[in-house]
Amino acid sequence: MAENEKSIRFGIMGCAEIARKVSRAIHLAPNASLVAIASRSIHKAKQFAVQNKLSENVKLYGSYDELLDDPFVDAVYMPLPTSLHVKWAVRAAEKGKHVLLEKPTAIDVKMFDDMLKACESKGVQFMDASMWYHHPRTAKMKEFLSNSDLFGRVKAVSIIHSSSSYHGTPEFLENDIRVKPDLDALGALGDTGWYCIGAILWTMNQKLPTTVTALPTTIRNSAGVILSCNASMYWDEEQIVATFYCSFISHETMELAVCGSNGTFHVEDFIIPYDESSAEFSFTSGAKFVDLHIGWNVKPQEVRVATDIPQEAMMIQEFSRLVKGIKDHGLQPDAKWGQTSRITQLVLDAVRNSIDNGYEAVQM
Amino acid sequence: MAENEKSIRFGIMGCAEIARKVSRAIHLAPNASLVAIASRSIHKAKQFAVQNKLSENVKLYGSYDELLDDPFVDAVYMPLPTSLHVKWAVRAAEKGKHVLLEKPTAIDVKMFDDMLKACESKGVQFMDASMWYHHPRTAKMKEFLSNSDLFGRVKAVSIIHSSSSYHGTPEFLENDIRVKPDLDALGALGDTGWYCIGAILWTMNQKLPTTVTALPTTIRNSAGVILSCNASMYWDEEQIVATFYCSFISHETMELAVCGSNGTFHVEDFIIPYDESSAEFSFTSGAKFVDLHIGWNVKPQEVRVATDIPQEAMMIQEFSRLVKGIKDHGLQPDAKWGQTSRITQLVLDAVRNSIDNGYEAVQM
Repeated sequence: MAENEKSIRFGIMGCAEIARKVSRAIHLAPNASLVAIASRSIHKAKQFAVQNKLSENVKLYGSYDELLDDPFVDAVYMPLPTSLHVKWAVRAAEKGKHVLLEKPTAIDVKMFDDMLKACESKGVQFMDASMWYHHPRTAKMKEFLSNSDLFGRVKAVSIIHSSSSYHGTPEFLENDIRVKPDLDALGALGDTGWYCIGAILWTMNQKLPTTVTALPTTIRNSAGVILSCNASMYWDEEQIVATFYCSFISHETMELAVCGSNGTFHVEDFIIPYDESSAEFSFTSGAKFVDLHIGWNVKPQEVRVATDIPQEAMMIQEFSRLVKGIKDHGLQPDAKWGQTSRITQLVLDAVRNSIDNGYEAVQM
Repeated sequence: MAENEKSIRFGIMGCAEIARKVSRAIHLAPNASLVAIASRSIHKAKQFAVQNKLSENVKLYGSYDELLDDPFVDAVYMPLPTSLHVKWAVRAAEKGKHVLLEKPTAIDVKMFDDMLKACESKGVQFMDASMWYHHPRTAKMKEFLSNSDLFGRVKAVSIIHSSSSYHGTPEFLENDIRVKPDLDALGALGDTGWYCIGAILWTMNQKLPTTVTALPTTIRNSAGVILSCNASMYWDEEQIVATFYCSFISHETMELAVCGSNGTFHVEDFIIPYDESSAEFSFTSGAKFVDLHIGWNVKPQEVRVATDIPQEAMMIQEFSRLVKGIKDHGLQPDAKWGQTSRITQLVLDAVRNSIDNGYEAVQM
């Protein structure tokens, strides 16, 4: 795709492991091309290019500023440690680059707003790199959850539960970037909790909860960074409750379960589907117990949704489509993505505040 | 089986809907027979006998006392409203009858202890009628959860989540016995929450949590009876957290999900299996993301466990086996079942206390 002159030209700032996946996604997206890589050292950038068999046309930079000064870069993907986001996202926006930012977006919503304002004032597109929003399964899941015949009234969603975890090695739990207070101070809450909060808000059509309360179950490493925690969210008007669990010390989970008045919904791999080419979710609708309560009248139904390109490539495709609209057709950036990130960040902040304040309820 | 003279002879006290299921279970169990039915009116007892095509040998009584005075009744099954349990279970024990009691066992643990003491002092077997403990699937699930290779160390169970709900009609939510403050004052917490608490404690090998905290999400009917609530449990030493949701206002759910250090476990129908003849659960063990994190190395595995007789008949069979040991071989009652009920009741009380005291944490 690199030769397609009409495609959006990406630069990647930072050679984290996740950049390999996104580099491939840029290659797979029909409207994007990778034109530059930057690391703090040119050596690391070269190593990344070799490891990922990048074309010789991809420019390699030994500093982020050099990449941002490249006029042939339209957009940057930024997989930097969270504490560096505000500095570099703001600078990228100031240079007129569209910003695709790794999650968690920021240490707190104040920093997030600095980035978003910079993007808005420069008219560049902002999006965080939560890939799962872009899988066609996600649209299909929303279709089910919005179907009042199958699922029941939206206001009758009663309980949402999400879990996102993986099992870090002892080395990871003390030394990985994701558990370093100066780099990713939010720990598991920022890394895996981001997805739980996002999925719960997605279920609630991005409506902020009334109250956020962490459960008194936070586990931290020796530097005080969260390795696992639980929290609850409550929507007063609708009387809906959500709970989630995020962790670096459990087996791999990526769950979202929603129970409504007439249906139950369940997905086990919402963040990274088991397979790249298709993904499933299951639901039960209108379940009743048969006479004598010795069984059910229905069982969960599996819905499988295929995808031509993986969800991360669909994310790149959507981001590039928006950038193209701005660049070639004078359209405005799509504010939806910034708002989706912002509300997630707001709830994340509230969970952290609740944890830091003796697990008190935080009014939103 | 009614002709088998060696079988344990059951009397049923109360003609609730659930008594139909247990009457059939007594018929299906190889070591039990139904010999008497009692209701507050002889008319209702007759109606029950006709509706359930009971043998003419089954005696019909118009009062509970008459049944308890019948020397040919070894054991009673008691599907009465919760508030009546203590009176009738104590009286049954005093008459030397073994007691199989519908859940929730009591309004609070003080009443529960009155019943248990009466049973212990008379040497009769006590068991609550939570059927799912007796399904062979349950033993298989425990095997998985205890397997440190598949699941990880017991102490590394990180999160347990359970949900039990069904969707009552508006009529049910105001007028059913289960939402009447003078009959079943515990509402959904007693009816469906009993199972969640039991399943969580079962996962924890009946170890009491350190703290129980309800979430500020309780919904009540106009009489103040709980229609839905959420709570969390915490085990200090193991740093394990459990959350549950129980409700009369959601779609049917009966879930238990457990996440350990090396495995994830999930069952969707633990209380009443979808099918009578076999039941499933699923687990994932040793999951890792494949290179580039574009998929998983393993998917959930389904385990199917067949059963010759339904779980409620297995419950009757086990109860009858214990009664026979006491009656014919001078054995002691099995204290395990009373203790299992008691710890469930203790946690249920704690959830209620937490709700009643502004959702404060209750130390156990």
